[in-house]
Amino acid sequence: MSSPGASTLAETVSAGSPIGQVLELIAPKLELVEQELRANFSSPIRTIQEVADHVLEGGGKRLRPTLLLLIAKMLGYEGRKDVTFGAVIEFIHTASLIHDDIIDDSAMRRGRASINYKWGNHLTVLIGDYLYSHAIRMALEAGDLDIVQMLCAATIEMTEGEIMGLANNGRADLTKDEYFDLIGRKTAALFGASARVPAMLVGLDESRQKTLYDYGYKLGITFQLVDDLLDFTSSEETLGKPVLADLKDGKATLPVILARSRANEAERRKLESVMLTKSFDEVDPLEVQEIVTRYGAIDETRKIAREYARDCKVCLAGFPDSPAREALEFAADFVLERDR
Amino acid sequence: MSSPGASTLAETVSAGSPIGQVLELIAPKLELVEQELRANFSSPIRTIQEVADHVLEGGGKRLRPTLLLLIAKMLGYEGRKDVTFGAVIEFIHTASLIHDDIIDDSAMRRGRASINYKWGNHLTVLIGDYLYSHAIRMALEAGDLDIVQMLCAATIEMTEGEIMGLANNGRADLTKDEYFDLIGRKTAALFGASARVPAMLVGLDESRQKTLYDYGYKLGITFQLVDDLLDFTSSEETLGKPVLADLKDGKATLPVILARSRANEAERRKLESVMLTKSFDEVDPLEVQEIVTRYGAIDETRKIAREYARDCKVCLAGFPDSPAREALEFAADFVLERDR
Repeated sequence: MSSPGASTLAETVSAGSPIGQVLELIAPKLELVEQELRANFSSPIRTIQEVADHVLEGGGKRLRPTLLLLIAKMLGYEGRKDVTFGAVIEFIHTASLIHDDIIDDSAMRRGRASINYKWGNHLTVLIGDYLYSHAIRMALEAGDLDIVQMLCAATIEMTEGEIMGLANNGRADLTKDEYFDLIGRKTAALFGASARVPAMLVGLDESRQKTLYDYGYKLGITFQLVDDLLDFTSSEETLGKPVLADLKDGKATLPVILARSRANEAERRKLESVMLTKSFDEVDPLEVQEIVTRYGAIDETRKIAREYARDCKVCLAGFPDSPAREALEFAADFVLERDR
Repeated sequence: MSSPGASTLAETVSAGSPIGQVLELIAPKLELVEQELRANFSSPIRTIQEVADHVLEGGGKRLRPTLLLLIAKMLGYEGRKDVTFGAVIEFIHTASLIHDDIIDDSAMRRGRASINYKWGNHLTVLIGDYLYSHAIRMALEAGDLDIVQMLCAATIEMTEGEIMGLANNGRADLTKDEYFDLIGRKTAALFGASARVPAMLVGLDESRQKTLYDYGYKLGITFQLVDDLLDFTSSEETLGKPVLADLKDGKATLPVILARSRANEAERRKLESVMLTKSFDEVDPLEVQEIVTRYGAIDETRKIAREYARDCKVCLAGFPDSPAREALEFAADFVLERDR
């Protein structure tokens, strides 16, 4: 839990403040989510239990369940299904991270050895499958068919986004529209779904369900944009991975897309070279950083991220003012400012 | 469709016979299953469509949907959900095969280039995920929550079986009990689920649902035992893969388990050596074949497979005699005799 960037929403606010108080109120439910995760990711099959222990020990910010619980709180939801669906969504997210480890061939995740590094690609795939199936089983047991369907659709979107990311790997000429479509599916859809679940649990009308989905979706976009920024602005130490790792992995991030559209031919070729060769053999990382900064691509990405964070707060305007709503507004700033 | 072993149940009986006639009766529904597969494994995302075309072109025996449709026929089911769930189960099966390609690092599947060979491990994982999610989506749309739950449990069992197989890879000392537990989960559970779906669709009582599940489960065990036998008895040409491939992959099959328990120390070490080194560098394949044959392990495996085929027919005894029931009995012989 002490790995870089693992600080939770609650850890960033003072305990006595109204937001701190509401986060304290949902803390017992967040602990129940952890219990659900442990209870459902456990097995008499030793290999599964070993991986489960490793994964659950690794922790995580539990941002999606926190979001879900806060909205449930704001809407006055009194049941216990928010805990169940919080765990379901965290499982879906975890399964996608586990399968992503295969995709990126990344040896580290959250500062710990990733599963595929420790147990091999084979088992990593199967453990991800196991988690996905368990998530669906838990959701089915809760019994709200419409919510399970919505989560299933979000999972499909997420997988589509991952596939699009892979298909577009190495492409420096990704358009802004293609980029936002991609991250919308890959990252924002599951945030949107997390925010929509409590709206469905309390039976809000379709339009207000959609507004809360939008809140989550826009928060997810903000989250991804900040992730993109961190590839340029964070150091290896605080990020837990080398800077410009996305670029070196052939992933077009918004700063690169914006810089590329303004750069001259020689500069363009430098950006493309890193993405295609997946190395800094021919281009110095500092040179890339310099190009991206000089064309204002970092500043503009930051500006767009702030706009999304602001828009996501606007989605909450129609709901009565409350500490829970304040905490949700604060979540946007938290995502914006996080120093993963 | 002309790849070795892709012959369907219908292709092995004469058209005029009672069994041939019932298979002709379900043929239009099997074609509807194909349509469901095509309609649901299609996407505006080009990469997904490319893989979908490749996978669906590859065909397959559609043994599980055939089984499901025949039982629906036997039970006089009149609706169309048998088609939906037939496609759902075929998708689950296909997703597991696709992820299995990563597991085995096998370049060929059904005589065609496997997906991971053609598109890489990354995409292979995601396409499997996509199919699993789509299968659940389709099942949810059909709306029978209890059936979706049952299929979800079978999928979890299947994944557990795969994980156990992996955890036990290289172990020549697997016990018979461990072996049957493993193949029961890995292979038989989904066959059992295929057979139970129509029983649930027509609302049979729990005990008769269980009997039909047992039919499918035992058919699945027979299927796996014959698979084990083929590793020893089939030639590379008819099998589409090298003989003793399972052994060389470190997988303990029943013939090896039985032979090992009877072999002397030197012979034991030979069997173990192939499984551990995953090569025939130190042991000649013919020598292995000779050991396994000499201790009667092939004959005994064949005998056990026949017993399972017989037991699986017995499960049908309580249902009224009909061409569909005859076809299901014949399915056991078909699985027993198949020359994949």
